[in-house]
Amino acid sequence: MSFTFRDRISVSIFGSSHGEAVGSILDGIPAGFRIDPVYISRWMERRAPGRSSITTQRKESDTVRIISGLTNGYTDGGPITMMIENEDAIGKHYDELKERPRPGHGDLSLFLKYGEFRNYSGGGFLSGRMTAPLVAAGSIAMQILNYHGIEVVSYLEELGDIKFISNDPDEKLIYQHETRMAGSSSDEDARRLILGLMSEGDSIGGVIRTLVKNVPAGLGEPFFDSVESVLSHLMFSIPGVKGIEFGVGFSMAGSRGSRVNEPFKWDGRRYYTENNRNGGVLGGITYGDQIDFRVAMKPTSSIRKEQATINVITHEEEKITVRGRHDPCIAIRAVPVVNCATALGILDLYLRMVLPYKGNPENNPGD
Amino acid sequence: MSFTFRDRISVSIFGSSHGEAVGSILDGIPAGFRIDPVYISRWMERRAPGRSSITTQRKESDTVRIISGLTNGYTDGGPITMMIENEDAIGKHYDELKERPRPGHGDLSLFLKYGEFRNYSGGGFLSGRMTAPLVAAGSIAMQILNYHGIEVVSYLEELGDIKFISNDPDEKLIYQHETRMAGSSSDEDARRLILGLMSEGDSIGGVIRTLVKNVPAGLGEPFFDSVESVLSHLMFSIPGVKGIEFGVGFSMAGSRGSRVNEPFKWDGRRYYTENNRNGGVLGGITYGDQIDFRVAMKPTSSIRKEQATINVITHEEEKITVRGRHDPCIAIRAVPVVNCATALGILDLYLRMVLPYKGNPENNPGD
Amino acid sequence: MSFTFRDRISVSIFGSSHGEAVGSILDGIPAGFRIDPVYISRWMERRAPGRSSITTQRKESDTVRIISGLTNGYTDGGPITMMIENEDAIGKHYDELKERPRPGHGDLSLFLKYGEFRNYSGGGFLSGRMTAPLVAAGSIAMQILNYHGIEVVSYLEELGDIKFISNDPDEKLIYQHETRMAGSSSDEDARRLILGLMSEGDSIGGVIRTLVKNVPAGLGEPFFDSVESVLSHLMFSIPGVKGIEFGVGFSMAGSRGSRVNEPFKWDGRRYYTENNRNGGVLGGITYGDQIDFRVAMKPTSSIRKEQATINVITHEEEKITVRGRHDPCIAIRAVPVVNCATALGILDLYLRMVLPYKGNPENNPGD
Amino acid sequence: MSFTFRDRISVSIFGSSHGEAVGSILDGIPAGFRIDPVYISRWMERRAPGRSSITTQRKESDTVRIISGLTNGYTDGGPITMMIENEDAIGKHYDELKERPRPGHGDLSLFLKYGEFRNYSGGGFLSGRMTAPLVAAGSIAMQILNYHGIEVVSYLEELGDIKFISNDPDEKLIYQHETRMAGSSSDEDARRLILGLMSEGDSIGGVIRTLVKNVPAGLGEPFFDSVESVLSHLMFSIPGVKGIEFGVGFSMAGSRGSRVNEPFKWDGRRYYTENNRNGGVLGGITYGDQIDFRVAMKPTSSIRKEQATINVITHEEEKITVRGRHDPCIAIRAVPVVNCATALGILDLYLRMVLPYKGNPENNPGD
Repeated sequence: MSFTFRDRISVSIFGSSHGEAVGSILDGIPAGFRIDPVYISRWMERRAPGRSSITTQRKESDTVRIISGLTNGYTDGGPITMMIENEDAIGKHYDELKERPRPGHGDLSLFLKYGEFRNYSGGGFLSGRMTAPLVAAGSIAMQILNYHGIEVVSYLEELGDIKFISNDPDEKLIYQHETRMAGSSSDEDARRLILGLMSEGDSIGGVIRTLVKNVPAGLGEPFFDSVESVLSHLMFSIPGVKGIEFGVGFSMAGSRGSRVNEPFKWDGRRYYTENNRNGGVLGGITYGDQIDFRVAMKPTSSIRKEQATINVITHEEEKITVRGRHDPCIAIRAVPVVNCATALGILDLYLRMVLPYKGNPENNPGD
Repeated sequence: MSFTFRDRISVSIFGSSHGEAVGSILDGIPAGFRIDPVYISRWMERRAPGRSSITTQRKESDTVRIISGLTNGYTDGGPITMMIENEDAIGKHYDELKERPRPGHGDLSLFLKYGEFRNYSGGGFLSGRMTAPLVAAGSIAMQILNYHGIEVVSYLEELGDIKFISNDPDEKLIYQHETRMAGSSSDEDARRLILGLMSEGDSIGGVIRTLVKNVPAGLGEPFFDSVESVLSHLMFSIPGVKGIEFGVGFSMAGSRGSRVNEPFKWDGRRYYTENNRNGGVLGGITYGDQIDFRVAMKPTSSIRKEQATINVITHEEEKITVRGRHDPCIAIRAVPVVNCATALGILDLYLRMVLPYKGNPENNPGD
Repeated sequence: MSFTFRDRISVSIFGSSHGEAVGSILDGIPAGFRIDPVYISRWMERRAPGRSSITTQRKESDTVRIISGLTNGYTDGGPITMMIENEDAIGKHYDELKERPRPGHGDLSLFLKYGEFRNYSGGGFLSGRMTAPLVAAGSIAMQILNYHGIEVVSYLEELGDIKFISNDPDEKLIYQHETRMAGSSSDEDARRLILGLMSEGDSIGGVIRTLVKNVPAGLGEPFFDSVESVLSHLMFSIPGVKGIEFGVGFSMAGSRGSRVNEPFKWDGRRYYTENNRNGGVLGGITYGDQIDFRVAMKPTSSIRKEQATINVITHEEEKITVRGRHDPCIAIRAVPVVNCATALGILDLYLRMVLPYKGNPENNPGD
Repeated sequence: MSFTFRDRISVSIFGSSHGEAVGSILDGIPAGFRIDPVYISRWMERRAPGRSSITTQRKESDTVRIISGLTNGYTDGGPITMMIENEDAIGKHYDELKERPRPGHGDLSLFLKYGEFRNYSGGGFLSGRMTAPLVAAGSIAMQILNYHGIEVVSYLEELGDIKFISNDPDEKLIYQHETRMAGSSSDEDARRLILGLMSEGDSIGGVIRTLVKNVPAGLGEPFFDSVESVLSHLMFSIPGVKGIEFGVGFSMAGSRGSRVNEPFKWDGRRYYTENNRNGGVLGGITYGDQIDFRVAMKPTSSIRKEQATINVITHEEEKITVRGRHDPCIAIRAVPVVNCATALGILDLYLRMVLPYKGNPENNPGD
């Protein structure tokens, strides 16, 4: 059941890297939302391969075919099914990897879990390609959140030593930048760094930051479904994520309470704190500040440089050179994925907030 | 539903900090496991308040009453219900906090989510006291994992600047140390640091590291139920957790693929890598290395030092001094909690691994 | 996980017939409902054993201890935990049944599923005693439904040949009648019939009818969570239920479309049909008529008459005479159970109906 | 979330009657089962419209395109996604029904639940066409059950007054008969009856019986996930089902314990009873007898005869004559649907039975 994330909404993804198609089903969406297919396409383009000189050269149109769930352009209460055909899968590069798992990659895990029955071509269902249908579903979640005034924006905050921090990044600018950094000169620096790595056949990691703005207070459920639990669950589903922290995160571990506690303030409309060190979440629940978290992405494990590995049949050490077309920095194309996956988590929690009735009539005369 | 974590097993917690009792139900455990109540008590003691000079002075016997699920000392296939009475709740300290939320604490969130109906005394169901029944349930998970040779061990790796790293820590030693650090001199240093903070009315955070040893390869499910997704979901349920990273985690974000990729090796029984930089999980699934992750805990937000806050009725700034009995470092008592919560997540994934039959008969002659 | 029924709400039951206690947790209830403990007790009394000459003589006070979920008498958003101590369990009658399963009873199933680890005393967790905490949880669901104008009423429609049908039964009258029939003379007839069976050491079945009044149109979800699916799932959880039909049910199978199709009518407030042959549900969803269904209960399998069975150790045929205290007609005490379980199902579906927003702003100017 | 049925396996269906396609995803199936596409097609043919003179004349090839989940013909552990294009949807017949709901049909429910946003053409996602992907998924469940020796067989036991009962029906014969009755002369009688009804523009209901053979003892979970709960939940998802009973069902309600209790017997391999009056399930769990239940199907509500209805806009009474192509007896084409849906429920329960280990090592020396 691991392909489904669910509570109020459910999102299931299907397909595999080199199979016929990938797709997703988004269920639990109320009827009556107008869904703009152009908006979906825009997000698909942002994640799509082959759109830039610094990402993989696999060419996929990534056109989303909506099979069900919309009637006359509005959600009709049924499951929203979307399908994206695979057009440019090249399986031959994987034959030589069949017995030689790539270091740092899930190849070996897949072999050990499914044995001879595994779908190994292109990483099968562990492939980053599975994030295409996740973006399709998430872009619908985003539209619904936007109707309610909630915005989600992710960008690449760190790439190697290059870092550009913004607490109010401009989404348009982020996607004008091939690196998805929020500042122009850091984008230029990062681009040059990646071009250098590509010529060496190497790769690099990055840190993606996400802000959820105008999120209502009271979002998140006590204990097991805290905002952080739900979002981290989704984030660690994205291939390559190795860590997550909310607000100042790990640096809070070395701090004293008197230094990191922040008094609440009121701006006439909502509560906030000066530095939002807790990332907008306390007790697992929002209180007014924006949600703010950072995700660590590992460097792409598939690199052209020769590497040592082990043959799973003979248990001998062998050398491999990974062919195929791979991103030098998966963190770049992961930016819209993190953005859309966050939207799914927030929408799920948002739909739990609104209750038919707060208590019995005598307490709710005006309801 | 946020009080239940579930797939193969389900663990529900109930109660509140100053209510009659707290408890948990662990369902989905197969019949026939002998459960040792002394083992449960041992874990309860490790988390219990009032057992050390450097933790809160609230006194609770934390005796676990097992209401159902065991027959003649063995699991009987029914839900295992455990109850722990609250004995030493002092509500009066909370009256003055009712309108004045503690900085860095979930008080404000609770107010904004539930309004006048909130259970605020002692933090209600957002209290760290809710981790007592989590430990009770987790200690049962631990026993079952142990029968299968799997071990989980957590310890305090960092407290302020004090750090002691061990890849093979000794559980007995950890719990002989009041700070739950794995080394004796660092325990002593940390103890002194905390005593100093206590005299100042301040608090500090920490980093807890967890290792899951002898975990079978193939544990974890693709995409939404990766090992990291399941464990991070549980970890962020624990009050005070602000970040999590697997293996070298965030430091991987700044690294090159050629430097962090590690060749797989075979020791005759299982695969491993030299430095386990990925924390034992690739593609969301284990392949042989031990699971290794670190959790960042914030400093206790309830400190004795005077702090500014806001009155939620008047929206005026006010000063508070938090009374009540609080830990100077919640990371210490969180060590057994992280340990037991991890066991619940691992057991859930472990029970998904074992299938009745791998495929149809003609392919499984020896089955 | 089978002890939990859940979607918007979750109800978990725990305990066993002869264990320390039974109880339930009702989670997912919004904060702010005033809960009347006297109302809970009233329903507990209606189900309780030993209250009438025609039911089992086991004496249980069935006092409900509310452990959590209420603050100052109102739901506080946390899980509502209720516990009922077992006071009059007599285990000795079960020793001779240990190897000799009662005909028509779940004894053999329990043995075959759990073997030596089974909790067999009094039927363990398969016992009808497990319906006590179900009534406790359901009586809370009932209060919430009542606040919203929805009523659920069940009564015993058939007992042997005795039948009394009412489309608008009086709840007070039903519970004044020891047999839970809706008419006074049929109650008298049924009482006499049962007294006769008791003297013979025999038992009898019955049919329970349930009406859900003022249920809003649009309740129920398409396909897998139809009103009928959710209610039948709950009904078949109740020990002794062998069948369920909505509206005219089985008799519709032998009918022609032209004879059973009914035109919709409008009474100025809601749609209805003349005879409500479909039991208020079409396409799995309500449209205005009251929900109407009937549940078939088997005769109590535990009878005093000598019966043949098999010894599960020796596989020899043996004779048994069931001792212990048993109802001559479980359908009678099942009436409040069916009533309360129905309320749980309806509340779950009701909480799914109310959505934060029907579509995007431009379509909802007045929202 | 109502489109998903799940515990160990999950089956989600998508699409609508007159949309582009319908389909289903079956998740949770272990890797390594060989799946025969011809077997899937055989079941699709049995349900397909336009294959007989006594069913609807809509023509659909109902070819199943398998998008994912199989690698080299074997399940690969990923979700099995199947799609069936809609080829012969004729929407025009539905324009005149838009404001005039068909009596006995879900049209009105759909209108009241989703208003202007509803997908009404051909009944939208309430259509019987949604059972095509259910059969596709169920036919895979059936193959897996067959590998384990479990068989499921459904047939039409009653059609109007015509009745043919078989405790060991021949699947091949059933599907040679256009009416899906198990006896040849009753098939002939039923065929004639339906041809007569067709000429009158009328319809009729029926009763479908299902037997699950060689089902292991111990199947089914206590309380909420009894065999009956799981199967009834699935059955009431199928459009047109109005009742279900296990074993002798409703007739048990009028019986005495001494008459219906049956002693258990042992045939050297499994337990059984003489007449299987409880339908193979006691305490919600199987003990050895075959599972035996009957489902009541209503007559097709869409009939050609003129009928009265109400205009939902004006609330005036109006007359309608339903055009479009409809089955005179939906019970016939429902036979394979009931069969396949049963297989899904049984498989789900079956996968819960097999546990990694029954208890701790000292009790399981030979394991």
